[in-house]
Amino acid sequence: MTTPPSTTDADQVGGAATAQNGRPDVKHMKWWGWGVEGVAFHFDDKPKFAPFVKKAVGLDLSGDKPPEHPDFSKLSVAAPKISDDLLTELKGAVGTENVVTDDESRVVHTYGKSLRDLLRIRAGDLPRVPDVVVYPGDEDEVQTLVELAVAADAVLIPYGGGSNISGSLQPPPEESRTVISLDLGRLSKVLDIDEEAGLARIQAGAQGPDLEEQLNQRGWTVGHYPDSFNHSTIGGWVATRSSGMQSDKYGDISDITRGVRVATPSGPLVLRPLPSTSTGPSVREMILGSEGRLGVITEVTANVHRLPDERVIMAYFFPTFDAGLDAMHDISLLDSRPSITRVSDAGETGFTLATAKKTSLGQTVLFKVLERRGWDLEKMCLSFVGYEGTKAHVSRQQGEVKEIVKKHGGIGVGKGPGVLYDQKKFDTPYIRDFLLDWGGAADVSETAAPWSRLKDVYYNTLEAARQAYRQLGIDPGWIMCHLSHSYHSGACLYFTFAFVYGDRDPLPMYQVVKNAIQQSFIDNGATLSHHHAVGTEHSPWLSQDISPAGAKIMQGLFTAVDPGRNFNPGKITE
Amino acid sequence: MTTPPSTTDADQVGGAATAQNGRPDVKHMKWWGWGVEGVAFHFDDKPKFAPFVKKAVGLDLSGDKPPEHPDFSKLSVAAPKISDDLLTELKGAVGTENVVTDDESRVVHTYGKSLRDLLRIRAGDLPRVPDVVVYPGDEDEVQTLVELAVAADAVLIPYGGGSNISGSLQPPPEESRTVISLDLGRLSKVLDIDEEAGLARIQAGAQGPDLEEQLNQRGWTVGHYPDSFNHSTIGGWVATRSSGMQSDKYGDISDITRGVRVATPSGPLVLRPLPSTSTGPSVREMILGSEGRLGVITEVTANVHRLPDERVIMAYFFPTFDAGLDAMHDISLLDSRPSITRVSDAGETGFTLATAKKTSLGQTVLFKVLERRGWDLEKMCLSFVGYEGTKAHVSRQQGEVKEIVKKHGGIGVGKGPGVLYDQKKFDTPYIRDFLLDWGGAADVSETAAPWSRLKDVYYNTLEAARQAYRQLGIDPGWIMCHLSHSYHSGACLYFTFAFVYGDRDPLPMYQVVKNAIQQSFIDNGATLSHHHAVGTEHSPWLSQDISPAGAKIMQGLFTAVDPGRNFNPGKITE
Repeated sequence: MTTPPSTTDADQVGGAATAQNGRPDVKHMKWWGWGVEGVAFHFDDKPKFAPFVKKAVGLDLSGDKPPEHPDFSKLSVAAPKISDDLLTELKGAVGTENVVTDDESRVVHTYGKSLRDLLRIRAGDLPRVPDVVVYPGDEDEVQTLVELAVAADAVLIPYGGGSNISGSLQPPPEESRTVISLDLGRLSKVLDIDEEAGLARIQAGAQGPDLEEQLNQRGWTVGHYPDSFNHSTIGGWVATRSSGMQSDKYGDISDITRGVRVATPSGPLVLRPLPSTSTGPSVREMILGSEGRLGVITEVTANVHRLPDERVIMAYFFPTFDAGLDAMHDISLLDSRPSITRVSDAGETGFTLATAKKTSLGQTVLFKVLERRGWDLEKMCLSFVGYEGTKAHVSRQQGEVKEIVKKHGGIGVGKGPGVLYDQKKFDTPYIRDFLLDWGGAADVSETAAPWSRLKDVYYNTLEAARQAYRQLGIDPGWIMCHLSHSYHSGACLYFTFAFVYGDRDPLPMYQVVKNAIQQSFIDNGATLSHHHAVGTEHSPWLSQDISPAGAKIMQGLFTAVDPGRNFNPGKITE
Repeated sequence: MTTPPSTTDADQVGGAATAQNGRPDVKHMKWWGWGVEGVAFHFDDKPKFAPFVKKAVGLDLSGDKPPEHPDFSKLSVAAPKISDDLLTELKGAVGTENVVTDDESRVVHTYGKSLRDLLRIRAGDLPRVPDVVVYPGDEDEVQTLVELAVAADAVLIPYGGGSNISGSLQPPPEESRTVISLDLGRLSKVLDIDEEAGLARIQAGAQGPDLEEQLNQRGWTVGHYPDSFNHSTIGGWVATRSSGMQSDKYGDISDITRGVRVATPSGPLVLRPLPSTSTGPSVREMILGSEGRLGVITEVTANVHRLPDERVIMAYFFPTFDAGLDAMHDISLLDSRPSITRVSDAGETGFTLATAKKTSLGQTVLFKVLERRGWDLEKMCLSFVGYEGTKAHVSRQQGEVKEIVKKHGGIGVGKGPGVLYDQKKFDTPYIRDFLLDWGGAADVSETAAPWSRLKDVYYNTLEAARQAYRQLGIDPGWIMCHLSHSYHSGACLYFTFAFVYGDRDPLPMYQVVKNAIQQSFIDNGATLSHHHAVGTEHSPWLSQDISPAGAKIMQGLFTAVDPGRNFNPGKITE
């Protein structure tokens, strides 16, 4: 692999738009992997990483560097299948320069960034790529495109940042109609801030860093930070029911979203920003999570907040994961709640420590002290709790949490690790590409469940994954977990799993492990996903999650709104 | 009118079930009005009430007492229209004793308690009453009834406490098919409390006092207190998107509801309790507000909370309504929020003071002090703020609010009025029946809007109502308002209007005033209702609120789930 000119520790926020040859000035991630060209994970300065990986998945990183990433010129990309008439109409709608049919643009818009997507793109597996990519410049143009798609019986797939990992972006392999990828990248502005109400009108294609920059300049924030933040859009957050790492305070995107504008087959849907409303079944909550099946989200009116006076992330260690979970539960019952509640299990704690550049003297001393106290360092769990608000509020909350941590046998270790976490929090996806270079597969599955089911979900899912690994003859296989969000009645558990496939076909292996984990969620009272959406990847569990009657209601909604199956068909449910 | 044996100040919570002749032991309100038989509003001990009413609506209460309430025996009730086969099947489904067709039962189940409902029932205007009332005893029986209704092409209308004021309960006047009222009164149990997760499984027919009593006994509360609390059910709260007077802390019913079970034409819909989930368009949020159009809610799994250590309601006066609104807005921006934020405008403050039994010496002195400070007592506004949590939390919040009140020129007047408010908060609907006896009509319209629109909504709605009164030649007509709930981005405004119709037909007069108010909401960026649902009463404004495309999506959902229009047809939208 090429040593990158910059590391993942570098600041990527607000990365400049990449002007492409004759194509609209819209940023895209690498066609073959996560993030921006020239940025990749490396372990040159992380001495514990290679030994950790050897132990966790049996991969030896001391050998020869793996081959370079795939060469675009070696891909076989089908020619666009689109009538001259439709092409002319599309150009008439958005301007000739905003309709592109070159191979690279179409390949970029074929997949998201799931493990399945990355494996297929590396293998040149492209059974169906979009026939054309269009970049509308305003809401009216989007509405026109929606109507053109219906009139031409074409398939229209909205595309935001392309970070989806649930298979929500891919054209159905068997689709014979023209497939249009509608890229919202030119709709990237914060249109207006209503400073009295704390509401901002934001175009759907605005990516995280861009919209926060526009808001921060005027002293405001949405406060929504999913792991994909650097490359995902607010329209995508709404379309997939995103949640961010500060959602304990700011709410999930479903709470943040107050108004929304959508280009639908029935005309423009306009839901005005309202703090609450009693107007029948919530159409707003039908658009949330709709993954393009009800039309194209063009604008979101979001709750925004004044930048807080104080923002602190404190780190804690707990002797066991159970103790950490119990502490997060107690924190969730406080009269006012922190912005971040997160605790990693022992495996993920080991992973985090292994990606550190060096072990500080203070850390070495701390671990010795904990061992003398009787801690088993193999079971130790790292936790982060974030505080935001006035100085008095932050200080008081820290005091309340300190008591709870102590009650559960934990110990506070200050702000240092929190600062590091805050800087590196968006970097993990780069490691997946690194592992793929070496023949290792990694992906994530996340869920939510009531507090009373959480430990069952955790232990039974670990066991389900391990059983899958045994079945596949994988030894060792890896699974780790953290609690990422707390609610009154439960929490989100976020699992990461990894294994080495060597010269076997990784996709069927992945499917066995993924299936085991997802089925364990359902069997233990948890949901198929807390914030990654359904797409095609989680669709098989939908009926088990919301019951067959629920799936039938949802299917009825899609059919009523889109009888021609023109809008991202096959996603969520048939 | 008969002087009642008890007054509305009496404790009605947990009123005993009224055993009826050969009918199931399910509590119902008066067939002709609000609340329980033998309880009514009177002003014998409220010396300021009659002068206030004289000034507000020109009604002289010193005259002869108005006639008694309508005599049931004088009503003309159409005979039940139901086939012997269907009647036999219904009896087979729920037991003979739980299927009733007597006139009084059917009349009780014809209407809710809107002004329109009360006027019609007093006038004996019963164009269509349900043909049969059934009382299922468990979820399976409800599912059977749903399937019987589809098979027989009958109309099925779910009935909880009968407190709805949006016309959600009435059979369509022109309906020629058999109309079944499905009364959930026998499903009134708290089935289970998951003490670890803070979740309770509650049967849909449980009325407010009953479910709180069952929870309180074990130290828990839902914390949901709509004005209708004493007579409404949790199933009804979900079906109409209810909000309660402590929702600032506990959330609206849409936040409280985590899991739900619904008998649908596609079979039992089971949404398991989840703190959050990313499973496409939210089916949970389709059931919320569905008013029986998607099936019958049988069970709700609700967030429940430990009873708080401390609960205090403090009263404040502000020199103007604007100052009060600004203070509530500032309170909504605090790092942690009170349980109640409420401020009445000057008119409603006058009304509240006029319903007091006596003016204390302290109050007289206070008002004199305020006048010396330059306050215009005619513009003075009463506010209540509620605090719940640990003693330290309550005390700290009170301190923060005190500062805000001071900043906006207000003054704290202690706990006394708050205790009174807490005791009397559910009594207002009785006053409506009292006024009707005297030829006065009163009703409510409530809405929500962003903070930036709130004052426009308030002043323009007052003006719209006054213009309607002028158009009708009503002088004086009354309208008053309070802010009842605060959110990050806005608040709920709750208007009450009243006028004397004398010997004119009140319904068309009511419609002119109601129309003016509702249209003002829409025109000023507010919603058609914050928590009273759509029904038939607000249906004309649905397309303006959620846009024609939104109404079309909703209609598509209803048609997909209920193609035969068997489930409460005509409510929310056609």
